[in-house]
Amino acid sequence: MRFFSDNAAPACPAVLDAIVAANGQDTAYDGDALSRRLDARFADLFGCEVAVLWVPSGTAANCLALTAMCPPHGGIVCHAEAHIQNDEGGAPEFYTHGAKLMLLDGDGAKLDAPTIDAFLSTIRDDVHQVQPHAVSITQATEAGRVYTPDEVAAIGALAKARNLGLHMDGARFANAIAHLGCTPADVTWQAGVDALSFGFIKNGGMSAEALVFFRPELAKVARYRRKRAGLLASKGRFLAAQLLAMLDGDVWLANARVANAGAAMLAQAAGDRLVHAVEANEVFLRLTADEAAALRAQGFDFYDWGVGQARLVVAWDQDAATVAPLAQAIAAL
Amino acid sequence: MRFFSDNAAPACPAVLDAIVAANGQDTAYDGDALSRRLDARFADLFGCEVAVLWVPSGTAANCLALTAMCPPHGGIVCHAEAHIQNDEGGAPEFYTHGAKLMLLDGDGAKLDAPTIDAFLSTIRDDVHQVQPHAVSITQATEAGRVYTPDEVAAIGALAKARNLGLHMDGARFANAIAHLGCTPADVTWQAGVDALSFGFIKNGGMSAEALVFFRPELAKVARYRRKRAGLLASKGRFLAAQLLAMLDGDVWLANARVANAGAAMLAQAAGDRLVHAVEANEVFLRLTADEAAALRAQGFDFYDWGVGQARLVVAWDQDAATVAPLAQAIAAL
Amino acid sequence: MRFFSDNAAPACPAVLDAIVAANGQDTAYDGDALSRRLDARFADLFGCEVAVLWVPSGTAANCLALTAMCPPHGGIVCHAEAHIQNDEGGAPEFYTHGAKLMLLDGDGAKLDAPTIDAFLSTIRDDVHQVQPHAVSITQATEAGRVYTPDEVAAIGALAKARNLGLHMDGARFANAIAHLGCTPADVTWQAGVDALSFGFIKNGGMSAEALVFFRPELAKVARYRRKRAGLLASKGRFLAAQLLAMLDGDVWLANARVANAGAAMLAQAAGDRLVHAVEANEVFLRLTADEAAALRAQGFDFYDWGVGQARLVVAWDQDAATVAPLAQAIAAL
Amino acid sequence: MRFFSDNAAPACPAVLDAIVAANGQDTAYDGDALSRRLDARFADLFGCEVAVLWVPSGTAANCLALTAMCPPHGGIVCHAEAHIQNDEGGAPEFYTHGAKLMLLDGDGAKLDAPTIDAFLSTIRDDVHQVQPHAVSITQATEAGRVYTPDEVAAIGALAKARNLGLHMDGARFANAIAHLGCTPADVTWQAGVDALSFGFIKNGGMSAEALVFFRPELAKVARYRRKRAGLLASKGRFLAAQLLAMLDGDVWLANARVANAGAAMLAQAAGDRLVHAVEANEVFLRLTADEAAALRAQGFDFYDWGVGQARLVVAWDQDAATVAPLAQAIAAL
Repeated sequence: MRFFSDNAAPACPAVLDAIVAANGQDTAYDGDALSRRLDARFADLFGCEVAVLWVPSGTAANCLALTAMCPPHGGIVCHAEAHIQNDEGGAPEFYTHGAKLMLLDGDGAKLDAPTIDAFLSTIRDDVHQVQPHAVSITQATEAGRVYTPDEVAAIGALAKARNLGLHMDGARFANAIAHLGCTPADVTWQAGVDALSFGFIKNGGMSAEALVFFRPELAKVARYRRKRAGLLASKGRFLAAQLLAMLDGDVWLANARVANAGAAMLAQAAGDRLVHAVEANEVFLRLTADEAAALRAQGFDFYDWGVGQARLVVAWDQDAATVAPLAQAIAAL
Repeated sequence: MRFFSDNAAPACPAVLDAIVAANGQDTAYDGDALSRRLDARFADLFGCEVAVLWVPSGTAANCLALTAMCPPHGGIVCHAEAHIQNDEGGAPEFYTHGAKLMLLDGDGAKLDAPTIDAFLSTIRDDVHQVQPHAVSITQATEAGRVYTPDEVAAIGALAKARNLGLHMDGARFANAIAHLGCTPADVTWQAGVDALSFGFIKNGGMSAEALVFFRPELAKVARYRRKRAGLLASKGRFLAAQLLAMLDGDVWLANARVANAGAAMLAQAAGDRLVHAVEANEVFLRLTADEAAALRAQGFDFYDWGVGQARLVVAWDQDAATVAPLAQAIAAL
Repeated sequence: MRFFSDNAAPACPAVLDAIVAANGQDTAYDGDALSRRLDARFADLFGCEVAVLWVPSGTAANCLALTAMCPPHGGIVCHAEAHIQNDEGGAPEFYTHGAKLMLLDGDGAKLDAPTIDAFLSTIRDDVHQVQPHAVSITQATEAGRVYTPDEVAAIGALAKARNLGLHMDGARFANAIAHLGCTPADVTWQAGVDALSFGFIKNGGMSAEALVFFRPELAKVARYRRKRAGLLASKGRFLAAQLLAMLDGDVWLANARVANAGAAMLAQAAGDRLVHAVEANEVFLRLTADEAAALRAQGFDFYDWGVGQARLVVAWDQDAATVAPLAQAIAAL
Repeated sequence: MRFFSDNAAPACPAVLDAIVAANGQDTAYDGDALSRRLDARFADLFGCEVAVLWVPSGTAANCLALTAMCPPHGGIVCHAEAHIQNDEGGAPEFYTHGAKLMLLDGDGAKLDAPTIDAFLSTIRDDVHQVQPHAVSITQATEAGRVYTPDEVAAIGALAKARNLGLHMDGARFANAIAHLGCTPADVTWQAGVDALSFGFIKNGGMSAEALVFFRPELAKVARYRRKRAGLLASKGRFLAAQLLAMLDGDVWLANARVANAGAAMLAQAAGDRLVHAVEANEVFLRLTADEAAALRAQGFDFYDWGVGQARLVVAWDQDAATVAPLAQAIAAL
């Protein structure tokens, strides 16, 4: 049974239905009626003016956001475990034309404002040192932790004071919102976030992510860069349709709640084995090689995560009944 | 009625069915069973070993191909009207890190070997001049013309003699093959082509193009570059499914034949108005502004193409009955 | 005798003396007293506020200027024969991260405003086409022709109206000023030029060119980019010293006058053989292969320039007595 | 008195004399007799075939070396305190088109083979992770420490086994050789180094560094890249002359010995204050703010180096008599 990645989950019915329905549209690129609805639809969700671009991957969303904030000679402050640093094959450097990721530490793959501030104070304003232009944080983090609105706001205030852009990699933004119970606005633009990579694919989408600019003027260059990167789908209506379908009736939130609930069930079973508090849909726990083998022998599929640890990911399509056998197996170790 | 772009056509039923069917798969990126079938399936089609990557756009396919052939400090010979020069927002320069497109002329947006050879002889082998590393041709061309196998082979032989890679932008490769009646091999690797951007989206696909390397070793770097460009879909099975569905039962060829037949019907009606011989699914014709307005008043939608000219594109879903009214309207002008 | 390139000429005594004298300075990079004098010294010359960076080559000056005006996804309008297009090994694409050079024609390697305007009107403001952000002209041109203040002003007005930056590649700016008899201001900032690559090396310098920004705010990024390109000499005082020595007592102008006078002498001898009017220190003339051989047999060294043509360049150190033998030899052909 | 940087030292007499003498040469770029002598002259020094390029800065040398070893999508392993990471304004990322610097720790800013090996073993060979292609070490290090031939050889063996290039940033290579007493070969190509940035400017040069390729085939692309980066001086003879002057009569070694001796004198005076063993011409020592102020009040100029530390650098022109007053002042604190 699949617990290795939410990327491996299927697309949810609403998304597939929307794709089939979109086939009637007939305008190319992003000129179709569905693509043109995005700005207004996301503005409703966030309660502010936004500019929204569909893109085919989270990496693309992250990188277009960063390139809108950071010149080639600039730097981007992020956590040493950030997806943009470790899992995107150097895409941020490609898109930004060589901006430097500046790596900081923090529990649970979370940055905090004092750590960032201390780092910034080590940078002299001279041409020999790369100057930071942006901060990027991940919500939920690579360790399955969630930033509270206050935590983001502290970073946002610092970023504003230092004239840095603030990007949020929200590959699991839905899971974070489901955990927090706040509005999407609370933890984004109201906390100083300038651009959000709003992930849908892991959460039941098929091939579309949303790049949301809370400073719409940033979108102008991003539109050119999207085309320049070969990301402008010629039949973009199929991407727009997915995003709209996920928002309609809050499918995105319902899906995330299922996944989070499954992870919570696993967390309870794991008890002292937990490496990080479980706040979204990922569970990191200590497992010996023998224990991992025992679980796999029962048909549970997951990744080792360094020595003596494993990662379990619950997806939108895995409800309590699906997750229960793994929870029991863990408890029984 | 839509004659402005085959990009605006719907996805064909085989493709939609395949997408729905692929939803059962559950491995991420390109590790799924469908993605793993691509090399063998295209090898069957081309009769040789190939390495195939799905990508979400033709621009992405072109650019990954070019970057596999040309270093940042090199040059790429292409026609001055090439899509890579005029319609991709600078994507080739982005992907190649600044390689220079070297623009040549030729009737019908076609390059020929003597023109390329004459150009190459003007380049000194010194560091002050950008050195060509690749040639890119479009099949069918931006003017709707088709290279014969012999024409490609002449360019292929020159490229080989000069140690240049040869790329074919096959956004409308299906239409070209439908016109030529030859095998896909005849006009690609047997004629010296190293990499083909094999277009499916205009021809009834939804969101997947195939990048076919006839020198499979070129694919190794392209795979890293695909990820680095944010093009590696996390649910790649949905892209692979589309390509397989288009090949099964030669849907790709059947679709292209419909489109070509429609264009031929328009060509016959256009008679002396034709700017270029019609060999694929695009028709370029002379129209006065009044004539264009008259056609639009009858509900036909198309692009002006410079002063006094227009472009009509027939898609896979536009059969004779669909095209006939426009043909009649043109004949009646 | 050398007539193949002014790059091969020696450094003039004032420059060598200044280098020796600068050895007493002892601050690194551009923090020394000489480097700090540049802005004020060039402001005197141009009669306006400027920001000046020394750089080690004309290519570097051109590229830093262009990158200050044009983003990676933008385009730069220039002549098809421009040095930045043909002789810099792709450096503009490297520095700008892949901006596209947009090539126009014009007699004597000169652009004119109507030609630029006509080209600009063909660019749609959409993401598929690269959008022009700058114009670059060469003064004196690659054909040895000189733009008048009015000609530059017409281009400058167009650039301003279209929101494009205007760069002047002044590798032989001194020769142009010597020809025009106008002030340096007349043909630069007063005519709409935003940045000037002010060449000194061909004109008696050793290893320093000046990049002059007439919009000083452009220099801020350029200073970061200069370091990032490995161009920030650690003992920059030796570069600043050269520039100051060339300006002191108008050495730059005196040197250019000598070179221009020599070229004028050759032009008179060449008569109907001239390909371009001789306005600076380069002479392009028609020579058969036999005639070229005959001149070389007499010890004159120069480059062939395409079929049946040759280029003769007179340097600052070649006075009338030095040039006279070649003039006589040409007249005697 | 200057102890803040060897970059601020004058050029030595041999270098200035050579520049003046080079003025008689008259061929452009690197076609002159002096530039053409470089390969053979450095081959003599290293006892092996080499390809040598002059460049105007150490940053340029480092970056051209790295770009010859690492593709844009690759990674370069270096120390977290490496000059290429901290002091070059992002130049390595610019030149390599976004390769990632992979930062490791080690005492005295030195890498060691086991640390590198452990890091490499964490990299999966998949497209999501940047793959290392090169290792770069600094000799002497940013902490003034020197790698022994055995230490380099261990890294070189590992690099070879892992198919990584090995670059040595030798901004203070002369100081390292002076300390080691070995041959230049011992610590470079015989220990597995592929390319050396051989620094001369800090050591008495004016504006030329040598980029030495021990695998001469790497130089081919580097020559194109040198031009493409605006680094190809049009009067290159003045750079070549400096390098030859420094090698003639082992000026480079004599100069380094003077600087090292001065640093050794300071080290002895500093005693327990030393942060790192002094092996080259840099001294890092603990100083309170009051002590630093006291030294400055006596006319000694130097940089603070983090909190409670300072860096003193002795240059080639500072002999024992020059250094003695500072040594006495330190001892007297």
